[in-house]
Amino acid sequence: MATPIDVVIMAAGKGTRMKSKLPKVLHRLGGRALLAHVMDCAAQLSARQAVVICGHGAMEVEAACGRMAGAAGDLSVKFARQEPQLGTGHAMQQALPLLPDDGVTLVLSGDVPLTQAATLTALLAQCEGQRLALLTLNMADPTGYGRVVRAGPGASAQVRAIVEHKDASEAQRAIHEIYSGIMAVPTRLLRGWLSRLDNQNAQNEYYLTDIVKFAVADGMAVVAHQITDAAQVAGVNSPVQLAELERVYQLRQATALMEQGVRLGDPARLDVRGVLTCGQDVEIDVNCIFEGQVSLGEGVRVGANCVIANAAIAAGAVIHPFTHIDGEKLGVQVGEGALIGPFARLRPGAQLGAEVHIGNFVEVKNSTLAKGAKANHLAYLGDATVGERVNYGAGSITANYDGANKHRTVIEADVHIGSNCVLVAPVTIGQGGTVGGGSTITKDTPAGALSVARGKQLSLPNWKRPAKLPRG
Amino acid sequence: MATPIDVVIMAAGKGTRMKSKLPKVLHRLGGRALLAHVMDCAAQLSARQAVVICGHGAMEVEAACGRMAGAAGDLSVKFARQEPQLGTGHAMQQALPLLPDDGVTLVLSGDVPLTQAATLTALLAQCEGQRLALLTLNMADPTGYGRVVRAGPGASAQVRAIVEHKDASEAQRAIHEIYSGIMAVPTRLLRGWLSRLDNQNAQNEYYLTDIVKFAVADGMAVVAHQITDAAQVAGVNSPVQLAELERVYQLRQATALMEQGVRLGDPARLDVRGVLTCGQDVEIDVNCIFEGQVSLGEGVRVGANCVIANAAIAAGAVIHPFTHIDGEKLGVQVGEGALIGPFARLRPGAQLGAEVHIGNFVEVKNSTLAKGAKANHLAYLGDATVGERVNYGAGSITANYDGANKHRTVIEADVHIGSNCVLVAPVTIGQGGTVGGGSTITKDTPAGALSVARGKQLSLPNWKRPAKLPRG
Amino acid sequence: MATPIDVVIMAAGKGTRMKSKLPKVLHRLGGRALLAHVMDCAAQLSARQAVVICGHGAMEVEAACGRMAGAAGDLSVKFARQEPQLGTGHAMQQALPLLPDDGVTLVLSGDVPLTQAATLTALLAQCEGQRLALLTLNMADPTGYGRVVRAGPGASAQVRAIVEHKDASEAQRAIHEIYSGIMAVPTRLLRGWLSRLDNQNAQNEYYLTDIVKFAVADGMAVVAHQITDAAQVAGVNSPVQLAELERVYQLRQATALMEQGVRLGDPARLDVRGVLTCGQDVEIDVNCIFEGQVSLGEGVRVGANCVIANAAIAAGAVIHPFTHIDGEKLGVQVGEGALIGPFARLRPGAQLGAEVHIGNFVEVKNSTLAKGAKANHLAYLGDATVGERVNYGAGSITANYDGANKHRTVIEADVHIGSNCVLVAPVTIGQGGTVGGGSTITKDTPAGALSVARGKQLSLPNWKRPAKLPRG
Repeated sequence: MATPIDVVIMAAGKGTRMKSKLPKVLHRLGGRALLAHVMDCAAQLSARQAVVICGHGAMEVEAACGRMAGAAGDLSVKFARQEPQLGTGHAMQQALPLLPDDGVTLVLSGDVPLTQAATLTALLAQCEGQRLALLTLNMADPTGYGRVVRAGPGASAQVRAIVEHKDASEAQRAIHEIYSGIMAVPTRLLRGWLSRLDNQNAQNEYYLTDIVKFAVADGMAVVAHQITDAAQVAGVNSPVQLAELERVYQLRQATALMEQGVRLGDPARLDVRGVLTCGQDVEIDVNCIFEGQVSLGEGVRVGANCVIANAAIAAGAVIHPFTHIDGEKLGVQVGEGALIGPFARLRPGAQLGAEVHIGNFVEVKNSTLAKGAKANHLAYLGDATVGERVNYGAGSITANYDGANKHRTVIEADVHIGSNCVLVAPVTIGQGGTVGGGSTITKDTPAGALSVARGKQLSLPNWKRPAKLPRG
Repeated sequence: MATPIDVVIMAAGKGTRMKSKLPKVLHRLGGRALLAHVMDCAAQLSARQAVVICGHGAMEVEAACGRMAGAAGDLSVKFARQEPQLGTGHAMQQALPLLPDDGVTLVLSGDVPLTQAATLTALLAQCEGQRLALLTLNMADPTGYGRVVRAGPGASAQVRAIVEHKDASEAQRAIHEIYSGIMAVPTRLLRGWLSRLDNQNAQNEYYLTDIVKFAVADGMAVVAHQITDAAQVAGVNSPVQLAELERVYQLRQATALMEQGVRLGDPARLDVRGVLTCGQDVEIDVNCIFEGQVSLGEGVRVGANCVIANAAIAAGAVIHPFTHIDGEKLGVQVGEGALIGPFARLRPGAQLGAEVHIGNFVEVKNSTLAKGAKANHLAYLGDATVGERVNYGAGSITANYDGANKHRTVIEADVHIGSNCVLVAPVTIGQGGTVGGGSTITKDTPAGALSVARGKQLSLPNWKRPAKLPRG
Repeated sequence: MATPIDVVIMAAGKGTRMKSKLPKVLHRLGGRALLAHVMDCAAQLSARQAVVICGHGAMEVEAACGRMAGAAGDLSVKFARQEPQLGTGHAMQQALPLLPDDGVTLVLSGDVPLTQAATLTALLAQCEGQRLALLTLNMADPTGYGRVVRAGPGASAQVRAIVEHKDASEAQRAIHEIYSGIMAVPTRLLRGWLSRLDNQNAQNEYYLTDIVKFAVADGMAVVAHQITDAAQVAGVNSPVQLAELERVYQLRQATALMEQGVRLGDPARLDVRGVLTCGQDVEIDVNCIFEGQVSLGEGVRVGANCVIANAAIAAGAVIHPFTHIDGEKLGVQVGEGALIGPFARLRPGAQLGAEVHIGNFVEVKNSTLAKGAKANHLAYLGDATVGERVNYGAGSITANYDGANKHRTVIEADVHIGSNCVLVAPVTIGQGGTVGGGSTITKDTPAGALSVARGKQLSLPNWKRPAKLPRG
């Protein structure tokens, strides 16, 4: 059986440069907390547990982890507190009581969101459950970073030391391999080395990297897995860095979608903050945003400048530009071949059948529209049940709220609602009926009837319209 | 007289990596099929004919070519079928019966959309109607590509061979010139060489490039026209490549517009899918899209996030942000000095005179508005004829659809329509008349009259509004 | 006391490549004239005066400077005319009568908008009130530019000459330092040197750079301040260059905001054309535009695709996507914790209290909404005073315009306005009252009353809806 993996996530730092009240690891990338990305990665590795070391904003971070649990699946999450923060080695010392000796400890940072599970799997393979293994990065310009000094050339050469830039010799400065901050280490060895740390240095901090020195001194093997993709080990320390990684993340999402066959108007102008699932021959125009869980069926076309969250769009539907869909908890469903927008807004609980048309300046909330129903212009449908083939007139409104409670409007099949009507809920418009334009309907209407509620038309001849008043 | 040019367009490939049901050459770039771009190029060269070699999705491709004919002008288009696909040489063999001996055959690919006519003209000049001429590309990193081996240095040195990367010597690998896939060849020579092709190679395919070998063996001159702009010979094999070329194409459109004097908010956020014609001092803000035929008169300003298709916008008009205009077949006309938007939608047949104002959340369809008419707020005008200086009130609607047929609303000059009115078509509001707010007008109104149709206002004192219901 | 600074701004050029009727220096970058950026820079230096040398479009430029004066603060602005334009030296000769001998003349260009005041301060420090000081640029590829030849290596080495590219020796062409067009020169020296200029050259122009030659010949020190940031000295000669500098400018704005702690969805998709002030923990999603003076309080979130001008948004307010706010002269105020949008439009004079909700397809103009008032759907509020907790129904309209004058609507606290109502101003809805859906209210309503104005609901059974007409 493979050695169990215990992931430790450093999440105690303040993140001063973020200039935010929010703890750094809770800042969002791709719509989710930085820490949630790291937890996901741990879950993908089938780690036995994740130990999150909290410090600044510990209560807030711990509470947030609870909400992330769903995302990270079955991962068991525990917390250690590091107060005050006396360095990375000190942080690990706080986690140690939670780490059984039979495992490998994988040290991650809560502010490094883009590490891929495959990279960590490769690192763990180097560790083999018994060796200290460092994740390293080959950088074109390593100036300022600690260099990884190896015993010889080649990827399998053992690590002799990590040397800080300021302490490095000319030859060492020519090294392009740097330490990433991520390591895998057998916990029983880690425990011994951590007990030997001291803080006799300029910062008076306990450095986790010092264990490399101990390992070498002990004659233990130290290995490294080197990558070249800097984004995987890049940390977020400022809003500028957060924005940079956001773009890296989004471009990766865009590329993955295109590789599945999705056509994008502009990969640099797509934002996916959650999970976007696409059928064949989906087209997404420029400047669209997807949030939460969104699925687009085969042949769906999404026009420019749409914002779509938590919605299922069935095959062949067309979402015109400037459409705003947000299903939140109730979700939104758009049926096959439906036409939505431009300037449409679908809110939670909008359930649209096949070939439904929702046009410009129309809002639909918590309503079911059966196949072929249409609301094409300047209308509001809230808490309504709309039958097949209903034509809901321009400017018409379901008055679902009496100031205290919400009531339901039922519009049966084949009804034609005129323009600028008000349907005062609770009310039912009987099947096949017609409501005359401008009517306010407060009582149920019979099937097949023409129902109206309007004043008689009168004209006052030679009417003198008000004249422009002189300015007082 | 110049040698006639017969263009052959390779369009038989499946495009597996597109992961699409659509044949590859029908995928769109700049709003038009890849193949249409190549056909346009052929038309610009005044080619005698274009022979499109179809295979995968042949019926669909051939049908689509019919629809492209208008774009490509007078170009005569013929089709050859290549089934199964046994290589580029085999493809040419299928086209051969359609190619007269007196011409030069120019071989293009239906998935290479950005070749410029001037480049091909230069290639044809090298061909001189009698020599095999290859279009070549100078690449910084030619790894993996077939190198063009010349008899000596200089652009006029004859080509000795095309050597595949894997077969190339160290010296040949140092060559940066590669073959683009585009050639011009005298048809009578081509015919002979094609008859000598065999498929004794790893892929068991017939390669068109083998004719270079035959030409050299025959002691015939082989020349090359070298370019450095890789985009001109880049093919589309995947959605990623399609998106890359789309951006190249759009940036070229943007640059061409700027060189004419158009000011763009951000050249990287402009999409032109069709033909955009601009007068002097036009300004286009960020994130706008133009489709089909759009003309913008002198001094027109287009705000951010507009989508404009098939429309003529006259001088001095201002299109505010978030305006959606689509004229489709009927077109949209916006008069001089008109103010449109924000959040306006103009649909097919909207014909707006000078100084017309269309404001937020207003939709206009198949309607004529004379000079100075205004509809500034939340309104719908469909199938209406609106006179000069009419003020069309907020929330007012032309009820043009009785559930079966569309009818016309006529609003004569100087009419003032109040708020939230419904004009039930067919109906005419007489000149200078006023319609009171909230009226549903079903009969024609006299000129100069105040017309109203509304209930009497009553108040019920001490009314107790519904209270929040307890949850059942 | 420090030597007084007289700034001279070259603004006489035609800018032919702009292909515009507008004088080049009036083209806008970041929403303001190029010249305004240069004037601002002069103001930051506490210059004694700015002398703007006008030529092409002089009247227009001079008039525009008046409008910029506010921006440039207390800076005294004078004008010189250069007609015809006979070179930079000739331009300076026109300014000379306005320049007192006790000052240093700082020569700037009206089409070089991104020079930073700190750079010019460093240049003036080199000048020391007594030496000719050139601003120079270190360029990776200086081909085509005049090289700065120094007496020796090092930043303090004196300048011996500026040598045009075509006149430069091989050794001089290896120099990467070029002259930027910006200099500081003691005015008394400048006066003497300008009198010695001639136009014996290919262009028959008087070149200001010739004074370097005179200075060297006179044995006077010529020094240089070298920078590496090309954008600071880049001029705008074409729409392409204007767009390039616009992006540089915007990216700098974005970076500055992020360094203050603002989180941006995409720094490449932000446009700030004016002054944007942000509190802590402000988040701005992709593709937003800010114009004029905008302040965002602590924790404000601005959704994607918003356009916000001249507005003060208080702490905790949320601006949903597709919101258009333009306060123009009256301004717009959004209260704490307010929720605005999506698809909302706030116009001048909208003053929204705390926790006000303005929803989709709602327009507010010149209206005050007290704490907790809501207008969530398809509505218009113009010239209205709305009390606390008012619920303004979907589709309701204040009819504030009688065709000649605007009138005020007063909706007192706790009123509930139904759907699709028209409130015909001037009118007051008494406190706690209710207006039934579909009512047109023309007279004041009593407090606490239910007011309605609607027709009686009737149904005509078995109504046969119009059938589709045969096409005539």
